[in-house]
Amino acid sequence: MTSLQDQIVTEFERDGLTFRRESWSRHEGGVGLSWTFPPAHSTSSDCPIEKAGVNVSTIYGTLSQKALEHLRPSHASLKEVNHSCSFFTTGLSLMLHPQNPHVSTVHANYRYFEVLDGPLNPQESTESVDDTNSSPKVLAWWFGVIADLNPTYLYEDDVKHFHTTLKEACDLHRPGLYPVFKASCDNYIYIPHRNEYRGVGGVRFDEMDSDAMCSLLLVNEPDLPEAMLARLSSWESLFELTQRLGNAFLPSFLPILNRRSSTTVTAAERRWQLLRRGRAVEFSLIVDRGTKFGLATPGIKTENILITMPPEASWEYMSEMGEEEGTEEAKLLEVLRSPRTWA
Amino acid sequence: MTSLQDQIVTEFERDGLTFRRESWSRHEGGVGLSWTFPPAHSTSSDCPIEKAGVNVSTIYGTLSQKALEHLRPSHASLKEVNHSCSFFTTGLSLMLHPQNPHVSTVHANYRYFEVLDGPLNPQESTESVDDTNSSPKVLAWWFGVIADLNPTYLYEDDVKHFHTTLKEACDLHRPGLYPVFKASCDNYIYIPHRNEYRGVGGVRFDEMDSDAMCSLLLVNEPDLPEAMLARLSSWESLFELTQRLGNAFLPSFLPILNRRSSTTVTAAERRWQLLRRGRAVEFSLIVDRGTKFGLATPGIKTENILITMPPEASWEYMSEMGEEEGTEEAKLLEVLRSPRTWA
Repeated sequence: MTSLQDQIVTEFERDGLTFRRESWSRHEGGVGLSWTFPPAHSTSSDCPIEKAGVNVSTIYGTLSQKALEHLRPSHASLKEVNHSCSFFTTGLSLMLHPQNPHVSTVHANYRYFEVLDGPLNPQESTESVDDTNSSPKVLAWWFGVIADLNPTYLYEDDVKHFHTTLKEACDLHRPGLYPVFKASCDNYIYIPHRNEYRGVGGVRFDEMDSDAMCSLLLVNEPDLPEAMLARLSSWESLFELTQRLGNAFLPSFLPILNRRSSTTVTAAERRWQLLRRGRAVEFSLIVDRGTKFGLATPGIKTENILITMPPEASWEYMSEMGEEEGTEEAKLLEVLRSPRTWA
Repeated sequence: MTSLQDQIVTEFERDGLTFRRESWSRHEGGVGLSWTFPPAHSTSSDCPIEKAGVNVSTIYGTLSQKALEHLRPSHASLKEVNHSCSFFTTGLSLMLHPQNPHVSTVHANYRYFEVLDGPLNPQESTESVDDTNSSPKVLAWWFGVIADLNPTYLYEDDVKHFHTTLKEACDLHRPGLYPVFKASCDNYIYIPHRNEYRGVGGVRFDEMDSDAMCSLLLVNEPDLPEAMLARLSSWESLFELTQRLGNAFLPSFLPILNRRSSTTVTAAERRWQLLRRGRAVEFSLIVDRGTKFGLATPGIKTENILITMPPEASWEYMSEMGEEEGTEEAKLLEVLRSPRTWA
């Protein structure tokens, strides 16, 4: 996670930008590295990035009985467990708000979760999962990924490039997975009270363990040989998939950032950008399960949960922007109201 | 409600401003009048009001079993009811975002709620509540009020004026009520994830019926004569209290709007205003029960629920604004972190 963070932020810093690097620790167990842009308040509009947060956080502690009950149905190994467990989770989350409305906003999150038998010794938690001789024992583990694009203006080439890059990473694991991950992403980014999606999606999976991957593979290929099924659903293999998707982030997004950052911007386009960001705020604060989890977890600083908030957003009552057919704004709204196939 | 709406908006329109007047109806039962400013998108900063919504909505329909269960504990008359009921509610909600950061943002809501026996005939629902010969019968009713001030910069005189005006309206009903209503307001506007309050409060009560008012009065005056207790807790008397508080809105806020609207504004003050509005957005979308109720009620347009959103808001990661002791920003934060007595 930290190496991916380093890789991404180093690339963003190429054009002479400097991120602010904060580290934090959680009294209840955990550490974090919050790398943000701008490093201090700025009104400059020369940078391609207006605001960004690339955050790695590692959190561990006792798993509440309520959380255990919640996890039990989807993890067979937890069915018989009725004593106190611990959890260990590490993840990278990323949100980039570009300056230029012709560049899409991008969001990503890569994470790993473990449920452990009994109390946790933080020193051991960083060791490999197959080191079964060490205690505590790992009762359940899974990976989670989301990467999604949220354009202010629709450039079909950009969206296709983003989806194709992610699809290729998924196909390397096994063809047929991408459509499932794409649908899961669309499902996640839906804003019910607006009946629209936060952007044009990407890929997503959550609670991905061996059982989940086996089920997924068998839907498409019921005759897949046992050995191949075991290999494709192993911890190592799912780690590799997560890593591949993490590594696909820069190739999926950098070309978009580079080719649109110097497009001329009108006041109306900026206005539309701020309105779209208002929708993203609504998603983050009303809909997003990640925000809810963060705010419900004691000891995580609110600033680090709301690191994804836009630098500026606006709301207009019954705005006419986007309502007039044939405009660029209406074209965007169309794909936000009925998701398309992009790759 | 509509006469109060008219009174308030007419006053706001005095300086040549024009509100947009939209009416709407809810398919499931109900109508609304949404009066908003600006009437169309505007980038002018000459008006004292940057954005405002003064909304009257009247909604009725079947009360869900879940809602009934929720109301039962606090309304004795509903304890024995186990058949389908209806509800009728009407209310005015108001949010005004001033242009000038030296003027406080103000929020208010005045409402009335009825639970009715059996299905509702909309024509009859507007008749007086003591018309007990007409069906359906009113099983429970109550009033609710909130009026609170949210300054960007602290002018103690303004806050004292606002609170004193509201206190006087409460005192006319019975001295001793204001401190309870003030505490209820503070309690409502608390933002847990920020450990601060959305502003300096005002007054609030909810589900105020005869029983609730009796209990409240008896705490301060256990020997209050029966007849006076009955009078002060009657429907008519609580309607009058609600009406008085509604009528106190303009006198509580207009002087603040008038005397601060032409104060010179620096870029730093505007920046602070937008950051404070970011907090108000967090309150509206994460904490506010009104927003949750609105979004959960089928058939209410989201635009009319989020009519209170600010025209512009901003977020900075770990902003230093307000952190430096002795600054005007820090002075405000101090009262937002520990509420004071103002009247």
